[in-house]
Amino acid sequence: MPDQALQQMLDRSCWVCFATDEDDRTAEWVRPCRCRGSTKWVHQACLQRWVDEKQRGNSTARVACPQCNAEYLIVFPKLGPVVYVLDLADRLISKACPFAAAGIMVGSIYWTAVTYGAVTVMQVVGHKEGLDVMERADPLFLLIGLPTIPVMLILGKMIRWEDYVLRLWRKYSNKLQILNSIFPGIGCPVPRIPAEANPLADHVSATRILCGALVFPTIATIVGKLMFSSVNSNLQRTILGGIAFVAIKGAFKVYFKQQQYLRQAHRKILNYPEQEEA
Amino acid sequence: MPDQALQQMLDRSCWVCFATDEDDRTAEWVRPCRCRGSTKWVHQACLQRWVDEKQRGNSTARVACPQCNAEYLIVFPKLGPVVYVLDLADRLISKACPFAAAGIMVGSIYWTAVTYGAVTVMQVVGHKEGLDVMERADPLFLLIGLPTIPVMLILGKMIRWEDYVLRLWRKYSNKLQILNSIFPGIGCPVPRIPAEANPLADHVSATRILCGALVFPTIATIVGKLMFSSVNSNLQRTILGGIAFVAIKGAFKVYFKQQQYLRQAHRKILNYPEQEEA
Repeated sequence: MPDQALQQMLDRSCWVCFATDEDDRTAEWVRPCRCRGSTKWVHQACLQRWVDEKQRGNSTARVACPQCNAEYLIVFPKLGPVVYVLDLADRLISKACPFAAAGIMVGSIYWTAVTYGAVTVMQVVGHKEGLDVMERADPLFLLIGLPTIPVMLILGKMIRWEDYVLRLWRKYSNKLQILNSIFPGIGCPVPRIPAEANPLADHVSATRILCGALVFPTIATIVGKLMFSSVNSNLQRTILGGIAFVAIKGAFKVYFKQQQYLRQAHRKILNYPEQEEA
Repeated sequence: MPDQALQQMLDRSCWVCFATDEDDRTAEWVRPCRCRGSTKWVHQACLQRWVDEKQRGNSTARVACPQCNAEYLIVFPKLGPVVYVLDLADRLISKACPFAAAGIMVGSIYWTAVTYGAVTVMQVVGHKEGLDVMERADPLFLLIGLPTIPVMLILGKMIRWEDYVLRLWRKYSNKLQILNSIFPGIGCPVPRIPAEANPLADHVSATRILCGALVFPTIATIVGKLMFSSVNSNLQRTILGGIAFVAIKGAFKVYFKQQQYLRQAHRKILNYPEQEEA
């Protein structure tokens, strides 16, 4: 070994703890990167701690010398076959579990939809008849058909036919003079066109659609019993109740929105009170 | 009206469209705030549009004069009783729906937990016996008892007894020389204490707990059938299978974590290859 390299070896010092050979003869040294001079040598133990800090618990993270940017060559003892298999299984489970958990959530919502569908069938057609229908039906048809009930209700609820009726109403309102007698002020022109009202915050309108759709069969059954008690068939009575409810609610909604529209249109901004000026 | 005020009225101009009285004799004027001079007067119609813009669809938002900061006095036609009731109902529904939707979600998870509990009872105790037990049980007890099954499984899964065993192992490993023969290298001291490994990302560990807990009864049943087929009682067989599975899995896990620990402890950082230096 040339004298110069030997000399360098003898007066090396660790760039982590600054100790030299005299301070600790037994310590193991390593030159992990391309650096020369005072940052060439470092204790193996000191460097390990330094790398631990840099990795912050992620033992597979790569670490490089902050000065010459050379990546440290970190090697581990070979994995035994058992540990290799366990490691593989561990990583597979970690990868699969988020998807399995998502599957559980979807399964939970699906199962609730099936149950809701079954309850709705019994509610609309009648308890006993509903059970008979479902017992006779093909299980596969049930597992697909029942959850479509809430889906259909939600999609149906998303159809905003009232807004369509409102647009027609405003478009042809001046031709609707005859309606003026029933709904006063229905046909007269508005002094100004108010700004389009903000639609409800997304989450509120989404929850309104969900709740409105899921409670609809119950309301249809109640309205059916109240208004069409003379109709014997549960199904027909509930369907009539549903149609009546949609129509009545729609009429109220159209009227309400039109009144809000008119209210906005007839909004007034007053003069600032005189006396406050003096 | 004093001459000066009259004169001001005559040469007023709208600070939105800059039109004066001559440009539009019929336009309605308003002085909505404390401003004087050229920004005192404005057309009612122009100010309405300006306010619409400021409100961006939120018709109840308050608007103030950008200069004197006086709030505009915006008044609406009085609400009719029907519209008042409809408005009230509309706002109530908007407030209640988010909570109702949250209730539906919780109900969905609860209902899935009840179903999972029932399926697990039938799986562990046996299909027919499970049904008998549940038919004889008090419905209220079922509606509370069944969902606690998945809850108990999840809580049980969160007990990390393997880590406790590991800590004991590392604490008294040097006294465990006798184990050295079974698990080579189990007792010998480690060259360094590796950094604590990062726990799994929260969502991964949460999903692992959820999936591990919910799949446990199925695994316990299978292990029970494989290892304790001589045991007649379904329940006992499944319990034995569960205990065996937990013990075996725990042993593997402790061994695996200890091997990872040792692997980290015997990690080495090599010298940077010489030839690359020249």
